[in-house]
Amino acid sequence: MSLLIKNGLIVTSDTQYKADIYVEQEKIKAIGVNLNFKAEEVIDASGKYILPGAIDSHTHLCMPYMGTYAKDDYKTGSIAAACGGVTCILDFNTQRNGETLYEALERKKSLAKGNTAVDFSLHPSITEPKDKIIKEIKTAITDYGTPSFKVYMTYDFRVDDSVILKLLAETKKYGGMLQVHAENFNIIEYFNNTFEKQKKLSIPYHPKSRPNIAEAEALSRVAKLAEITGGNLYIVHLSSKEGLEEVKRAKDKGVNIIAETCPQYLILDESRYFEPEFNGAKYVMSPPLRDKQSGEALWEGIRSGYISTIGTDHCPFDFNGIKDMFGKNDYRKIPNGAPGIETLMMLIHSEGVAKGKITLQQMVKILSVNTAKIFGLKNKGSICPGKDADIVIFNPKIKFNISYKKLHMNVDYNPYEGFDIIGMPETVYVRGKKAAQFKNDRVEFVGEIGRGRFIKREPSF
Amino acid sequence: MSLLIKNGLIVTSDTQYKADIYVEQEKIKAIGVNLNFKAEEVIDASGKYILPGAIDSHTHLCMPYMGTYAKDDYKTGSIAAACGGVTCILDFNTQRNGETLYEALERKKSLAKGNTAVDFSLHPSITEPKDKIIKEIKTAITDYGTPSFKVYMTYDFRVDDSVILKLLAETKKYGGMLQVHAENFNIIEYFNNTFEKQKKLSIPYHPKSRPNIAEAEALSRVAKLAEITGGNLYIVHLSSKEGLEEVKRAKDKGVNIIAETCPQYLILDESRYFEPEFNGAKYVMSPPLRDKQSGEALWEGIRSGYISTIGTDHCPFDFNGIKDMFGKNDYRKIPNGAPGIETLMMLIHSEGVAKGKITLQQMVKILSVNTAKIFGLKNKGSICPGKDADIVIFNPKIKFNISYKKLHMNVDYNPYEGFDIIGMPETVYVRGKKAAQFKNDRVEFVGEIGRGRFIKREPSF
Amino acid sequence: MSLLIKNGLIVTSDTQYKADIYVEQEKIKAIGVNLNFKAEEVIDASGKYILPGAIDSHTHLCMPYMGTYAKDDYKTGSIAAACGGVTCILDFNTQRNGETLYEALERKKSLAKGNTAVDFSLHPSITEPKDKIIKEIKTAITDYGTPSFKVYMTYDFRVDDSVILKLLAETKKYGGMLQVHAENFNIIEYFNNTFEKQKKLSIPYHPKSRPNIAEAEALSRVAKLAEITGGNLYIVHLSSKEGLEEVKRAKDKGVNIIAETCPQYLILDESRYFEPEFNGAKYVMSPPLRDKQSGEALWEGIRSGYISTIGTDHCPFDFNGIKDMFGKNDYRKIPNGAPGIETLMMLIHSEGVAKGKITLQQMVKILSVNTAKIFGLKNKGSICPGKDADIVIFNPKIKFNISYKKLHMNVDYNPYEGFDIIGMPETVYVRGKKAAQFKNDRVEFVGEIGRGRFIKREPSF
Amino acid sequence: MSLLIKNGLIVTSDTQYKADIYVEQEKIKAIGVNLNFKAEEVIDASGKYILPGAIDSHTHLCMPYMGTYAKDDYKTGSIAAACGGVTCILDFNTQRNGETLYEALERKKSLAKGNTAVDFSLHPSITEPKDKIIKEIKTAITDYGTPSFKVYMTYDFRVDDSVILKLLAETKKYGGMLQVHAENFNIIEYFNNTFEKQKKLSIPYHPKSRPNIAEAEALSRVAKLAEITGGNLYIVHLSSKEGLEEVKRAKDKGVNIIAETCPQYLILDESRYFEPEFNGAKYVMSPPLRDKQSGEALWEGIRSGYISTIGTDHCPFDFNGIKDMFGKNDYRKIPNGAPGIETLMMLIHSEGVAKGKITLQQMVKILSVNTAKIFGLKNKGSICPGKDADIVIFNPKIKFNISYKKLHMNVDYNPYEGFDIIGMPETVYVRGKKAAQFKNDRVEFVGEIGRGRFIKREPSF
Repeated sequence: MSLLIKNGLIVTSDTQYKADIYVEQEKIKAIGVNLNFKAEEVIDASGKYILPGAIDSHTHLCMPYMGTYAKDDYKTGSIAAACGGVTCILDFNTQRNGETLYEALERKKSLAKGNTAVDFSLHPSITEPKDKIIKEIKTAITDYGTPSFKVYMTYDFRVDDSVILKLLAETKKYGGMLQVHAENFNIIEYFNNTFEKQKKLSIPYHPKSRPNIAEAEALSRVAKLAEITGGNLYIVHLSSKEGLEEVKRAKDKGVNIIAETCPQYLILDESRYFEPEFNGAKYVMSPPLRDKQSGEALWEGIRSGYISTIGTDHCPFDFNGIKDMFGKNDYRKIPNGAPGIETLMMLIHSEGVAKGKITLQQMVKILSVNTAKIFGLKNKGSICPGKDADIVIFNPKIKFNISYKKLHMNVDYNPYEGFDIIGMPETVYVRGKKAAQFKNDRVEFVGEIGRGRFIKREPSF
Repeated sequence: MSLLIKNGLIVTSDTQYKADIYVEQEKIKAIGVNLNFKAEEVIDASGKYILPGAIDSHTHLCMPYMGTYAKDDYKTGSIAAACGGVTCILDFNTQRNGETLYEALERKKSLAKGNTAVDFSLHPSITEPKDKIIKEIKTAITDYGTPSFKVYMTYDFRVDDSVILKLLAETKKYGGMLQVHAENFNIIEYFNNTFEKQKKLSIPYHPKSRPNIAEAEALSRVAKLAEITGGNLYIVHLSSKEGLEEVKRAKDKGVNIIAETCPQYLILDESRYFEPEFNGAKYVMSPPLRDKQSGEALWEGIRSGYISTIGTDHCPFDFNGIKDMFGKNDYRKIPNGAPGIETLMMLIHSEGVAKGKITLQQMVKILSVNTAKIFGLKNKGSICPGKDADIVIFNPKIKFNISYKKLHMNVDYNPYEGFDIIGMPETVYVRGKKAAQFKNDRVEFVGEIGRGRFIKREPSF
Repeated sequence: MSLLIKNGLIVTSDTQYKADIYVEQEKIKAIGVNLNFKAEEVIDASGKYILPGAIDSHTHLCMPYMGTYAKDDYKTGSIAAACGGVTCILDFNTQRNGETLYEALERKKSLAKGNTAVDFSLHPSITEPKDKIIKEIKTAITDYGTPSFKVYMTYDFRVDDSVILKLLAETKKYGGMLQVHAENFNIIEYFNNTFEKQKKLSIPYHPKSRPNIAEAEALSRVAKLAEITGGNLYIVHLSSKEGLEEVKRAKDKGVNIIAETCPQYLILDESRYFEPEFNGAKYVMSPPLRDKQSGEALWEGIRSGYISTIGTDHCPFDFNGIKDMFGKNDYRKIPNGAPGIETLMMLIHSEGVAKGKITLQQMVKILSVNTAKIFGLKNKGSICPGKDADIVIFNPKIKFNISYKKLHMNVDYNPYEGFDIIGMPETVYVRGKKAAQFKNDRVEFVGEIGRGRFIKREPSF
Repeated sequence: MSLLIKNGLIVTSDTQYKADIYVEQEKIKAIGVNLNFKAEEVIDASGKYILPGAIDSHTHLCMPYMGTYAKDDYKTGSIAAACGGVTCILDFNTQRNGETLYEALERKKSLAKGNTAVDFSLHPSITEPKDKIIKEIKTAITDYGTPSFKVYMTYDFRVDDSVILKLLAETKKYGGMLQVHAENFNIIEYFNNTFEKQKKLSIPYHPKSRPNIAEAEALSRVAKLAEITGGNLYIVHLSSKEGLEEVKRAKDKGVNIIAETCPQYLILDESRYFEPEFNGAKYVMSPPLRDKQSGEALWEGIRSGYISTIGTDHCPFDFNGIKDMFGKNDYRKIPNGAPGIETLMMLIHSEGVAKGKITLQQMVKILSVNTAKIFGLKNKGSICPGKDADIVIFNPKIKFNISYKKLHMNVDYNPYEGFDIIGMPETVYVRGKKAAQFKNDRVEFVGEIGRGRFIKREPSF
């Protein structure tokens, strides 16, 4: 099957230029001025942007949570992704009790098999860091093609500094990297205990229990562990100004530190926790939404290059019956997480590019180019001959009003409900085949479940 | 005339990929995998890099100096450029006594007309900043296509802060920018006077008379003037660690400041001034060569993105009869300047990329991509369909020993004499036509004098 | 004449302790526990603080201004000083056209002779920095005992960087120092011209014409000149957060930089310029009042030790007939300056110590101890055997409502009118003799005009 | 018993002045010019400094260590102290298994009772931070007069962040403070394990196993815990440049952080670990000796005021039979610690004041004034009427060559063996009674064992 996209404005991380794109056998074959290739499908993309499909670096599909599951599985999640212009997903693969990393990988791959509409890879998430498990890192990188591993510095399944040192040293040996959820557990517990004694357990105490400094402390510490080992460190969901300052400090000293943020930390802020009738629960996630200055600082971090990627931390729970069932009187019990995979690209364009906070080039860089490079997705991330034809024809003029009803994520609310969006993915191709199409007032899924493949990644360092 | 370059490794500022390039009518028409285009010339570039031609942001061709001229004119200078892989030159156009900016532009364009082998543009250099002259900025930008203007904070033709404020405000109105030679005149004079009294006028006092802090002071000051006016500031030939720190400080505060450095500040250092038999004079330039830490800091500045471009400050004087005729007993009288245009690309590759200080991507960024963007050369700077076919087939395996005898610059010495280089421009195309070719032990000029055009540039801001 | 002050709480820059003080022949002879000395006068100071008299490092008495004079001469000014607990004044001695420094010193000493109630010294202020004048610095230090010299970086009588370099080098030779009014003239002119064109000449444009960055720029620059010469630099009336940051940066690098601030920059802010009916003119001074953050930063600067002294910049003009006669339609014409000498100590105590911003120790340090050390007043500044008996018995419980009517400064308004003060100088001794006494609702002058002496100071470096 | 010291130069933290001191009943009664008091003993101190006795903030007397004891007990240790001009000792009081803080205090007080030549207090050192123990803090402060409590972030008896948070909060309630040994345990273990595997266990690996960054990390972390709780934090034995930078950062942000360093970190450096024949073991302590830049940075920290106190970490072990018996093949087994109490004052004077690194004022500040203030020793630390007559007549001209044979510390080597010292304590008074006297070539103890008292301290915050 062949495809010719004519007259679009191709956007790279450097520049933008008008040219035609010819696609054959799932790949971009040629880019040129007035290409006279014959193709089965010819599209005129005049006035539209040609973007590489976005890569969501941070999702939690099929995630078990306190006896239930986060709402999106590979099927619903990948349909939502495709409709949002996300053509590749990097999903977390948390080790269960007693499981090896390999078993975990096989388990989650089999969940996805035949069920996903877009390509995907996995980040093994290590919760039982025994020596035996640490030895599996080599094979996970070289054979399974998953060179990024995650640990948590907070929660019950947190690891301590000694484990992080070992993992930084071990992943580095094979060119892999360590992803870290950086929050200081003891600071959070200190506030949880203090607020419990003071009977301050309503939603606005959720962000107070995890202050910016709890992130900054953990980040400063883990950056020093990376400095010592020379390891490759990736900070997931950076959320605060103070945290960003630690990233800067480390990077300026030569530490190999990469930072990811999420749309919610750029766009929303802690005032949401004061929404009436328990609606604040919709935004309960960790790290929490922050002050407005942090949001501005994070945009600046993208502009200056200290922030390299954006993931959604997609992990939705219904508001009715789930978010509002637990924790009515105790913020600590509200399921943590929110939907995001489908709104990623539209939000970054509408709130970022259209509002002049970042350029189109910077958008493509953080949504696709950097993500592919950092995670070793060698055939993804750019509109470039030889790469997979994961292409978004983006129409910067379409207006869209966000409502969970018009989106495909399997959840009964949206954190951005009512936002007026300018610019939408109009047509989305997954490896050369159309997967989503804007029609009337929304994007419709027109792709094929099961077409998505597990991608073996290469070490990047 | 058409050209097909096959199997080369195309290098962009993000990535590198193997593909074919088809060139027609001076432009890149298509890039693709196994392109089956017919072309008059077909080249196999297997194992070679395909780079955009370098753009030298900082040259002084045909420059008058104390009654004589710097040695390279447009002819010799542009031949040397082409042989070094530099396919576009941004030359300074210094206003003479009583001249308008327009007269200066016409004068220098007519010097170049018919005499240049590569494309070029001009930076008007303002030395008589009367109100009438300042009003010419608008037309210089919109009609002449020269949106970058230079002033000096030192020398007899320096301007004071009040002029800089006016120029920053005026250039900004039309999307232009102000280029500044940032050294504090009074500090330099203080040392000149002190050393004169102390009878310390040998060559090693040249760098002592212009210490790092003289650059840092001027830079800190002009950055604050840019902050006040919101103007677009470009620092030419940044040379010191301390200066770079001021660039960082300003950029982190949101000042629109762009920094350029030169190969000599990255690679050479002040120990050169101690070379015997007056050989130190070969390196007398301003700013002077610095300490080794400054060199390391500047490489780091390229990696971190605080330094955006590299120019050569090409301004050669013969050693015999010129450098050594003046100033035997007084460093202040030695003609300032050194050759550099031809060795730019080979040095940045060999000393930078091959030694692991920067990546190929970073090299392309500072030699071509950024330079084109910052200076409004919309058809230059990238290997991309629609752009001018200014292409360097770079062979990373060629070994070359630098000697002024094998180079084309019209000067009797080379500051890097004897350097062992790895990697050389093998074939250089200027708008699709071959201009230089490596043969035996050197590059030969095979292009056409007079083919170079004056390029009207667009405002970038 | 002998004096015994019993049971007071003696305050030093380190500590406070209860002891008796015995004074004889103008000097403190002994300090001890239950001293059994016979004295002509015995005072019980139970519950009161015993402070060294304050030293005002920055006054303009008998200052000519645009054909008129600032309102206080040595008589009225020194009476106000004594009543405020200021027992020594460091007054500026501005060189007139054609005058030598010596002539200026003799002229101003003769103005003071027989007319002053407290001791004083002079800072020569250099406005015509010819070589001949610069040579006088040696004698001014060694014979006249005035080792501190002032220059301005703004106003008509500003000096440029070359002069500052010379003066830093020359004063350093003899252990003297250079005091600098640090504001960038060209930035101010840029705003003056801009606002003139925009017809924005009302009072609130006064601070906008001299933004914080104009101070920070000049300060950053002069600090670098001090770094180069190794000279001793004193920044007068530091007013902004940004300026303080430059002081920090320089001091942390080892530059010998000393910073002075004024009560008005600590306590008042730019909102004052919006007072109705031209009342904003009362606060027109240079540098202008700043934002609230600057005030907070300056208090922090005192606590951290980056700010060493406080002067008042006392330079009053009547509001009626002077301030409001000029500049009704043009902020640039309003006479610059305000009264301050008499309210210095009460404000620093009431707004600083009583509000917990600084400690009593820090108050004594910046009002007396540091000032004496920095300016070479070897017999002043501490309650210590052997020193001059310049003593303030300070009653921390007295309440006072500031009104110009109850103060002795010769001016028709007060910038702090209506402030409720806690803590006042109750009895003030100048070299062992009572000069002021709190009675009923105000301090009364009970001293002797003409008792004040010119103090020869010693170099401190 | 009464004492009159005539004509000495009294040194305060501000100034120095010539006066007489009269002492009666253990206290300073009066200071004055030509005091005509009758005294049983009259001393002429012309040409000598009168200093307050030094206070050693950090000692380990009678310290159990791996089945043995550090060599000095209260008797030998306090004799050495007196001979070195240290008139007050703040000794650590480490909680034993199962012991309450009160029991530990009583135990150690009884060890000292009747055995000490100088005054002392104790810092409870918490190793079993159960809730019950934490509740004892209140009484330890209010009744026992020990408001400073120590914890370790490394060693087996380390505490984690949750404990530090609790202790910062609890000590703050009563105006106390938390002293922290700040080194990251896991970093040290990482290196220990790495070196073990690599069979790198010789002495020079001791400092490599505890790099500067291990201190900086722990310090940065605990400073953030102090910021969160508002607690009062005291960093013991700060040793590295990187650590000092964290102190600065925290203090500049307003954290109440106080830093102590030790003579060994100022004066010695890591090259000592390369001494032949296992002599490097003499310097095995934790933190280890550092690079030379750290030493210079620490002196600068004293000058700038970021370092407030100096303790010795006195904890001697014999070289022969102890240091060299353990750990011949494993640096980890060498007993940690070195002697220091007797050489404190002479080293800070000779290496600091005499070499121009600090002033006499700064020496008095860090050895006495600050230490007394910070630790609530209200009757100590200054030469001031009413204070305890802990006085050192210091002769700046005495030359002394350091040898363990001429010192009183109970140990068979000295880390400064062979150092040429200029300036020695000549006569030392403990509460008005002579305790040590320089005779011939050394100081002799002439005091009284058992005269030293336990001092109840007051909270300082």
